[in-house]
Amino acid sequence: MDILVVGSVAFDSIETPFGKGDDVLGGSATYFSTSASFFTGVQLVAVVGDDFPDEPRQFLTSRGVDLAGLQTRPGETFRWNGRYGYDLNEAHTLETHLNVFETFHPQLPEPYRKAEYVFLANIDPELQLEVLRQVERPKLIACDTMNFWIEGKRQELIKTLARVDILVINEGEVRQLADEPNLVKAAEIIRGFGPKTLVVKRGEYGVLMFSEGSIFAAPAYPLEEVFDPTGAGDTFAGGFAGYLAATRNLEERNLRKAIVFGTVMASFTVEKFSLDRLKEIDFKDIETRYKRIKLLTDFADLD
Amino acid sequence: MDILVVGSVAFDSIETPFGKGDDVLGGSATYFSTSASFFTGVQLVAVVGDDFPDEPRQFLTSRGVDLAGLQTRPGETFRWNGRYGYDLNEAHTLETHLNVFETFHPQLPEPYRKAEYVFLANIDPELQLEVLRQVERPKLIACDTMNFWIEGKRQELIKTLARVDILVINEGEVRQLADEPNLVKAAEIIRGFGPKTLVVKRGEYGVLMFSEGSIFAAPAYPLEEVFDPTGAGDTFAGGFAGYLAATRNLEERNLRKAIVFGTVMASFTVEKFSLDRLKEIDFKDIETRYKRIKLLTDFADLD
Repeated sequence: MDILVVGSVAFDSIETPFGKGDDVLGGSATYFSTSASFFTGVQLVAVVGDDFPDEPRQFLTSRGVDLAGLQTRPGETFRWNGRYGYDLNEAHTLETHLNVFETFHPQLPEPYRKAEYVFLANIDPELQLEVLRQVERPKLIACDTMNFWIEGKRQELIKTLARVDILVINEGEVRQLADEPNLVKAAEIIRGFGPKTLVVKRGEYGVLMFSEGSIFAAPAYPLEEVFDPTGAGDTFAGGFAGYLAATRNLEERNLRKAIVFGTVMASFTVEKFSLDRLKEIDFKDIETRYKRIKLLTDFADLD
Repeated sequence: MDILVVGSVAFDSIETPFGKGDDVLGGSATYFSTSASFFTGVQLVAVVGDDFPDEPRQFLTSRGVDLAGLQTRPGETFRWNGRYGYDLNEAHTLETHLNVFETFHPQLPEPYRKAEYVFLANIDPELQLEVLRQVERPKLIACDTMNFWIEGKRQELIKTLARVDILVINEGEVRQLADEPNLVKAAEIIRGFGPKTLVVKRGEYGVLMFSEGSIFAAPAYPLEEVFDPTGAGDTFAGGFAGYLAATRNLEERNLRKAIVFGTVMASFTVEKFSLDRLKEIDFKDIETRYKRIKLLTDFADLD
């Protein structure tokens, strides 16, 4: 089953202690789609300016990403300019130019309305709701958000969350959204807003998933070279939700496998700028790293 | 087999967002011993002042901790005064009164010299070396240290590490000691200093263990109530090294079990002030939490 994603397609200019990239392909929907495409087909909903070239379109199409929902509008594509220090867990935004994204309203092409698996990447919760009004009867709605919407559009976000099955957000944002410093308590509060499952992204510390009566902890894959963390969260979400859509199985056991696949995908993305590393790998590489995470976390039962 | 520990016995005055404790029993050797005592006998080497009362001595003795190596000197016992904010990962030291600890030199009673399992808690690396000169032929030497010694006594610390099998330290101190921001690379650098195994404590994010050709990641046990993190690291070390001494098995598989037992012990300590929670639990509680960590981390192999 395909997965529908709505989010941003952007050009990023990024500086890390290890290098610099100017106007490289980025955006939440781009990372998500490329990652999910290793598992299933993707329907992408986003907007770009008339400056957006053919090459990235061809790349996404070659990965099995359907671009019927990618609007092209007069003006420039969304641009983000950020910097990381040695603490690669935190991005410092230098500039954000929304450009054509400022007036974006998602329009789902007719076939997308039957989407059964939907991922709402980190955009205005009102736009997330617009998407939900256009899909007929999804089996799974997952979504991301950020501090900016938690502060500025809290009521709209809460309204969106009431319709969401799985919320995927950063640890600090869990505490902020729940207004509770203890993560276990905060997770219960947020599950009370609607999402049955909460996936907490903790950067280099991995992921915690809270579901009914169960917590799952997955470490990040330890890397000797972290080059650029941009897109790690969206790549994680793409692997996670893409695997769920591909397997059409939302049981806890399968959710856990999906978390590990998401972790694997994110571990590749951060090894190079933009989507460069994802362009090099194949499914065998993904499986190898999945098995390594199994070894990394394995310990004996009590005798 | 008993384990020998050298470290501090102290009175702590602690403030957390959840409460206050004045002159409660603390110190690295105290937490370590109490935790290890659930697994094996302990020989404690430390110093207290003549103000040190009978009650904690009786408590430690009742736990199977041998106090023959606990010197009593004229003057006051070591006192530490600290505070935690909602970010319980970081202690803010308000006052440290070394008192009798200032002139401490560890003296091993004759029977301690045959110790096969030795833990050097976080004290001056020169004192750690004094202990190593007094033990005959230990099978395992594990040690802890901190930023204060890494900055102030780097050469002495490096000398101690050359004789150490397992180093147990905080994540930030790994980076500082290795002068390398990437944790995987930093671990290899430190393993080059001597310790075959490096155990990296990451607070609420759990533990990473680096050994020859292997990395193990264990999460912290997710708690709804973290009351006071003081002593978590020493309690972890006590469970870890205590289990190793009890089982006399230093294979990777057993090291991993030991890490999980350490994690379990630390998770109890932080639920109340001082040793209050450790005083309430029994081995059944420890086993229950071990099994829960197994469930917390379990996920399926690839089909």
